[in-house]
Amino acid sequence: MPKCVVLLSGGLDSATVLALTKSLGFEPYALTVVYGQRHRVEIDAAKKVATAQGVVEHRFVSVDLNAIGGSALTDDIAVPKDRIESEMTDIPVTYVPARNTIMLSIALGYAEVIGAYDIFVGVNAVDYSGYPDCRPEYIAAFENMARLATKAGVEGKPTSIHAPLITWTKQQIIERGLALGVDYALTHSCYDPDEQGRPCRRCDSCLIRQAAFAELGLNDPALS
Amino acid sequence: MPKCVVLLSGGLDSATVLALTKSLGFEPYALTVVYGQRHRVEIDAAKKVATAQGVVEHRFVSVDLNAIGGSALTDDIAVPKDRIESEMTDIPVTYVPARNTIMLSIALGYAEVIGAYDIFVGVNAVDYSGYPDCRPEYIAAFENMARLATKAGVEGKPTSIHAPLITWTKQQIIERGLALGVDYALTHSCYDPDEQGRPCRRCDSCLIRQAAFAELGLNDPALS
Repeated sequence: MPKCVVLLSGGLDSATVLALTKSLGFEPYALTVVYGQRHRVEIDAAKKVATAQGVVEHRFVSVDLNAIGGSALTDDIAVPKDRIESEMTDIPVTYVPARNTIMLSIALGYAEVIGAYDIFVGVNAVDYSGYPDCRPEYIAAFENMARLATKAGVEGKPTSIHAPLITWTKQQIIERGLALGVDYALTHSCYDPDEQGRPCRRCDSCLIRQAAFAELGLNDPALS
Repeated sequence: MPKCVVLLSGGLDSATVLALTKSLGFEPYALTVVYGQRHRVEIDAAKKVATAQGVVEHRFVSVDLNAIGGSALTDDIAVPKDRIESEMTDIPVTYVPARNTIMLSIALGYAEVIGAYDIFVGVNAVDYSGYPDCRPEYIAAFENMARLATKAGVEGKPTSIHAPLITWTKQQIIERGLALGVDYALTHSCYDPDEQGRPCRRCDSCLIRQAAFAELGLNDPALS
């Protein structure tokens, strides 16, 4: 089975992507990029998801994005709460400058080290239309750059960047994940959990997730 | 004066690039990416260079590339010594998978946070022809990806990636730097310094640097 790298955040999307890679016949190597702001609960969720689904290995790479700041997730900026969907179209303060580029770059290095030519990332253009680095044209441009960046690419083995959820709604993601047996009770999506790691239920990420489960007539198992 | 981000390693090339940005009328913001393997002496060199030349600020961002390894600079692999020039054409074990992509990605995030639209990097395709991420076509592809990756890019302010040394020989770099007043005594290029931080004089990086100073009829001030 071919190896692949899966960027695993501990959230709902990446947990679904991990399950997808296995259904597609890949051997997943999970990579969690710990970027300073990351709450302990998010790292723990990534570990639980990797353990529950089974991966060949799970690496953690730290990058101190607090050193550059510029986002509600890496700096002293408040996470917006209670926004309605129509307010979520602009690029929000939870946008971390160049985050997906940094995470995909580290995944590219990891893929080259282990000899994998496929990287999977759970970006989604529907619910986070405001994030520039969640768009299909961005993913295509990264893939083109990656082809020129690595020893593997030069030697005729380019790395593919797969963003299978990119055009899916959150409901579609959850439905597919449930069909693949993903245990969403293990996942964590909140931008602003309390000290016990419990989701705030009011940030964009919580609201989008809650709405999706509600529209499917389901309870979010991570909230029970 | 427009702001720019300069990737500053503490080596000869990036010290020259920093001087170039000032001669071009930019206000330089220095960024040193500390990627695990980095010897203390290299960080100290970056600090000295930034202080000597003057920068608006100097940020350090750590990324733990030892967690993925795969290079003589990040893993338990010996640095080659005493190679002749004709042996330096293959991609060497000192190649760090996706290193320039990771460093440029972090620079892209930093640039966006401070409102800079120009990133300078001292990559060079002549002396390190074996490194895929030192080629002009790679830099162009990164720039294209960056345009799509950031909030600034989406808002019509794309970030330019400048690699002014990319086609220069090491002698040309040194000559230009000396003309701009760069103090090369402060720089550090060795891949494998001893415990006191002294260069080994035998790795590719030392040999290329020594040869360039010798061909200019100069002593390397960092070796005195």
